[in-house]
Amino acid sequence: MMRTSERNSNGFYSLFYLLLFYKKKMGKVLIIGCGGVGTVVAHKCAQNPDVFEQIVIASRTKSKCDAVAKAIGAPNITTDAVDADSVPQLVELFKKHRPDIVINVALPYQDLTIMDACLECGVNYLDTANYEPRDEAHFEYSWQWAYRERFEKAGLTAILGCGFDPGVTSVYTAYAAKHHFKEIQYLDIVDCNAGNHHKAFATNFNPEINIREITQKGLYWENGKWVETEPLEIHQPLTYPEIGPRESYLLHHEEIESLVLNYPTIKRARFWMTFGQQYLTYLDCIQNLGMSRIDEIEYSAPLADNPDKTVKVKIVPLQFLKAVLPNPQDLGSNYDGQTSIGCRIRGIGNDGKELTYYIYNNCSHEAAYKETGMQGVSYTTGVPAMTGAMMFLKGIWNKPGVHNVEEFDPDPFLDVLNKQGLPWHEIFNCDLEL
Amino acid sequence: MMRTSERNSNGFYSLFYLLLFYKKKMGKVLIIGCGGVGTVVAHKCAQNPDVFEQIVIASRTKSKCDAVAKAIGAPNITTDAVDADSVPQLVELFKKHRPDIVINVALPYQDLTIMDACLECGVNYLDTANYEPRDEAHFEYSWQWAYRERFEKAGLTAILGCGFDPGVTSVYTAYAAKHHFKEIQYLDIVDCNAGNHHKAFATNFNPEINIREITQKGLYWENGKWVETEPLEIHQPLTYPEIGPRESYLLHHEEIESLVLNYPTIKRARFWMTFGQQYLTYLDCIQNLGMSRIDEIEYSAPLADNPDKTVKVKIVPLQFLKAVLPNPQDLGSNYDGQTSIGCRIRGIGNDGKELTYYIYNNCSHEAAYKETGMQGVSYTTGVPAMTGAMMFLKGIWNKPGVHNVEEFDPDPFLDVLNKQGLPWHEIFNCDLEL
Repeated sequence: MMRTSERNSNGFYSLFYLLLFYKKKMGKVLIIGCGGVGTVVAHKCAQNPDVFEQIVIASRTKSKCDAVAKAIGAPNITTDAVDADSVPQLVELFKKHRPDIVINVALPYQDLTIMDACLECGVNYLDTANYEPRDEAHFEYSWQWAYRERFEKAGLTAILGCGFDPGVTSVYTAYAAKHHFKEIQYLDIVDCNAGNHHKAFATNFNPEINIREITQKGLYWENGKWVETEPLEIHQPLTYPEIGPRESYLLHHEEIESLVLNYPTIKRARFWMTFGQQYLTYLDCIQNLGMSRIDEIEYSAPLADNPDKTVKVKIVPLQFLKAVLPNPQDLGSNYDGQTSIGCRIRGIGNDGKELTYYIYNNCSHEAAYKETGMQGVSYTTGVPAMTGAMMFLKGIWNKPGVHNVEEFDPDPFLDVLNKQGLPWHEIFNCDLEL
Repeated sequence: MMRTSERNSNGFYSLFYLLLFYKKKMGKVLIIGCGGVGTVVAHKCAQNPDVFEQIVIASRTKSKCDAVAKAIGAPNITTDAVDADSVPQLVELFKKHRPDIVINVALPYQDLTIMDACLECGVNYLDTANYEPRDEAHFEYSWQWAYRERFEKAGLTAILGCGFDPGVTSVYTAYAAKHHFKEIQYLDIVDCNAGNHHKAFATNFNPEINIREITQKGLYWENGKWVETEPLEIHQPLTYPEIGPRESYLLHHEEIESLVLNYPTIKRARFWMTFGQQYLTYLDCIQNLGMSRIDEIEYSAPLADNPDKTVKVKIVPLQFLKAVLPNPQDLGSNYDGQTSIGCRIRGIGNDGKELTYYIYNNCSHEAAYKETGMQGVSYTTGVPAMTGAMMFLKGIWNKPGVHNVEEFDPDPFLDVLNKQGLPWHEIFNCDLEL
């Protein structure tokens, strides 16, 4: 915000922004979802009461929201229960609390029901992961982009993919395009988690979503078309700042889809994520055991409150596995090491010469836990979600329609990140390894 | 039988046995359990209609019994449904069919309910695995030995552990003691499965029972007391006939418990089983994922016949894993290689000198499948169960009370095994490796 103001030497615009800021600062936010990311979002919103005057946290289990509210201890937080699969329940919740914006950090399956309720109630929208159908692990923006016209007509803003990746990585790309590149040609988003949770196996976020993502085929953009790979087929060691070399695997990741549209000069765009050998061995095992299946199987089990009666239920193996695995929210207390996520970009610089550029953030799991009680992976997703909502409430990212984050001004967003725990760094003319 | 008759040169006894044989040969057998082993037992009983005049197969799911009966296609097989956890249901079943003997190849949890029903209805009993409580993976005979007096008073015979191991291994030991050893001092039971089912992971029998067994602490008998080891702590390569060296792991196995009591000269008794590295990696993964847990967890799931209604049920993770894993009964069609199970014994021979002795059977998965539609592990368990029931119906193993198989005459049993698909071989003065 400061940097944006300084850049606007024109007094009239400064005054305009100030008025806008004043008008919008009394914001009410509704956070849907109370997992690790929801907890971080709530903490960070509460740290910024000048913007988030009132905070509501809602999830299927109200007691989880109550526990988070109690841990934060701020007077402006209330809680509620909602089944985010149900549009009527969401509408009732929105009408009761009348938020300015919803931060959706529930499950990706629930993006569309929440967007529907936003349209019905005139509420603005922000999420961190694109919609995917429950019965198919398929990631693309088409379902949500189909809401563009309706949001535009309603005068409502929907901000898609405002976590770290997607989110900050897309803003990094927008920042590079705005300030350093005449033409971005090669984009590699690199995501390293060099943390150690000291458990044999655990996923860093919702195991269901994590395993769905990783077991899918890889996909990247090259010369105007999508290239598909076998799951985890392409990999190579990459060197991460303050961490060193880590084997990195090419995955499909949703931000690539919008970035190649918004930056048509991109010749090749890829996404890389690190995995340890133990993690991959376990993943292979989970798949071969059949525990990563996302179809329903019939299973007979006794009722919890009447064990003499056995009923036949439908169970998705991967969802059951989630119930047995360590809860990612419980990993924080013994998590050390750090994450390093960024963009490695090659293209034509503003001076017309080839430029290589690496912009990244490193985040310490221990520092994240100390501040919010959650580990770094939740932290790096939750802080940008709060920041995006702040951008909207301040009137900076207020643009009716459905937008990916690179469509907004990156500067004020990155200024806030610097102050809110996710400082970023730039390296010019470096060896990108890619 | 033949060998026993030949040995009894006394005409009176021969006549006595003949009468007994005649009286008993019209036997009716009730097989409870219709998994891989139950299927083999049914096939083998049907192959011996002179002894098993009538065959009833009962399990929780009658349609499974119907399919087996149909596949065998013999006119003397009927089927029924029973929940073997329920004594009243078992009693009703026994009263309806009035079998001479029950072959229990259901779950080990159900041994005691079936024995209770046997006592109530005057039915003789045979099983292949000792009782274990559902909520504790603990293997010992005490629960079933506690029935000794009641079976004796009722004039009923209960034959415990009449599969391959326990079962044939115990009979091998009895045979060695009867014919070759003055004193058995060191007994090592060695169980190798060198078959390949061409799946990433599958268990050869009920995965729930298999994983419970293997993840427990090891136990062996030495110098008059039990020595406990960590799970799979002790291992070494052993060389198996026609197979070669395979890494073999010391496990606790139930037959050791009765053998050291029945052969008090034994200084050390151990049980070894082979596992491949891939199997152990998966097992490690299953444990670390929490999927080998045998406690109940509460889980919410939609009803199969009314998906709009979600209920809370209790699920044991290991039982759920069983529902997802390949069914051991379906492994047979693509299973090659063979099993090799036997006893390696060292002690004082009949001539007063040290004797080393190895008695074993090798069983081909393909041959077993060709004959019964089931792989070798089911076959090697089912054939001895049928043989034990035959011994009882022929009046040879008819002794009121509760007995482990080594308490009976091994000769006629081993004669039948030779003819029924499990021929055995002896090696004298060999390198036992142990």
